[in-house]
Amino acid sequence: MTLRRPRAYLAGPEVFLPNKAEVFAAKAALCHRYDIEPTPPIDAAALTPSDRLSRQIYLRNVKLMDAADLIIANLSPFRGPSADVGTVFELGYGFAKGLPVFGYSNHPRNYLDRAEAFFGPSTPGRDGQKYDRVGHAIEDFDLADNLMIDETLEGFGGVFRPTGGEPGDLSELSQFERCLAYAAEHLERLRENGSAE
Amino acid sequence: MTLRRPRAYLAGPEVFLPNKAEVFAAKAALCHRYDIEPTPPIDAAALTPSDRLSRQIYLRNVKLMDAADLIIANLSPFRGPSADVGTVFELGYGFAKGLPVFGYSNHPRNYLDRAEAFFGPSTPGRDGQKYDRVGHAIEDFDLADNLMIDETLEGFGGVFRPTGGEPGDLSELSQFERCLAYAAEHLERLRENGSAE
Repeated sequence: MTLRRPRAYLAGPEVFLPNKAEVFAAKAALCHRYDIEPTPPIDAAALTPSDRLSRQIYLRNVKLMDAADLIIANLSPFRGPSADVGTVFELGYGFAKGLPVFGYSNHPRNYLDRAEAFFGPSTPGRDGQKYDRVGHAIEDFDLADNLMIDETLEGFGGVFRPTGGEPGDLSELSQFERCLAYAAEHLERLRENGSAE
Repeated sequence: MTLRRPRAYLAGPEVFLPNKAEVFAAKAALCHRYDIEPTPPIDAAALTPSDRLSRQIYLRNVKLMDAADLIIANLSPFRGPSADVGTVFELGYGFAKGLPVFGYSNHPRNYLDRAEAFFGPSTPGRDGQKYDRVGHAIEDFDLADNLMIDETLEGFGGVFRPTGGEPGDLSELSQFERCLAYAAEHLERLRENGSAE
């Protein structure tokens, strides 16, 4: 019996890299090694230019997600201490659709450390929380990002990230590969449980 | 015939304000005026402290979203040029669950302007795209935020935002009220179409 390879939507801010085609090609090659079919987000350059280019990209990405069997999200910080919001939207979307969702970040440190690195040291408030310089509380749960992200991924291996060292750039693939290996195993377990029924 | 009031999950970074209780009380009062039942995210202070506080908050928020009839998201920029990632996760989650989702921002300017205000002027690349100083393309669609957010909301009145002036802070409610009024009308139309069948 031949099974269709599971199709992974590769959510991530690599879409904003000038060399995105190469980066996604490298990700695709790794996916194949784990018997997973890669689906990168749509490349705008592949679409007919129009004044509603953003609409076209959106509709195509939603369609790609709807045809996917899993999501693998690059949650590396993007233009601030948090992940790219487009990627996070897609994580929430895929999870609500019932897809297994997996995520990684190339940044070793937790959200509080990154927020402080960006905006300066936090100040403790009377309520015991830590506040940034404009008076907004900073989550202090030793998580990679906002708790809605980390806790969603808790059932899928957590947010894969380096244990130390300097942050990798968006195209670095070692955490992606760890995450991918975990996802492949997770799907294999699901398949075994499914066929045992 | 009495209909249950539609229940709105009030996603937003106001959870990080020291006066969040007052801000959500003000939002709730406005909701009642539009015959909408407000559901703010869980207040961590209402939970029993535990080492898995982040887990408790997460599970409660997911439950609140699952019991909601609509989402109204405060997409004002938070700790960077984009919206709070927790809020964006919830927007994607609610949308994928088939809920009508609505959003507003207290910032009048578009994403490109905000990215440049944060990280300096962009540089045009050979591909015609605008790049930030670390070489990441900046979306230039005159949208409020990442296209996945704006284009999702396109079917729900778009991202409500001020037409000019200085950005309001997270607790400012004029755009929330515009968004709420639109949501109430949208639900009314859905109800009328439903009862006509």
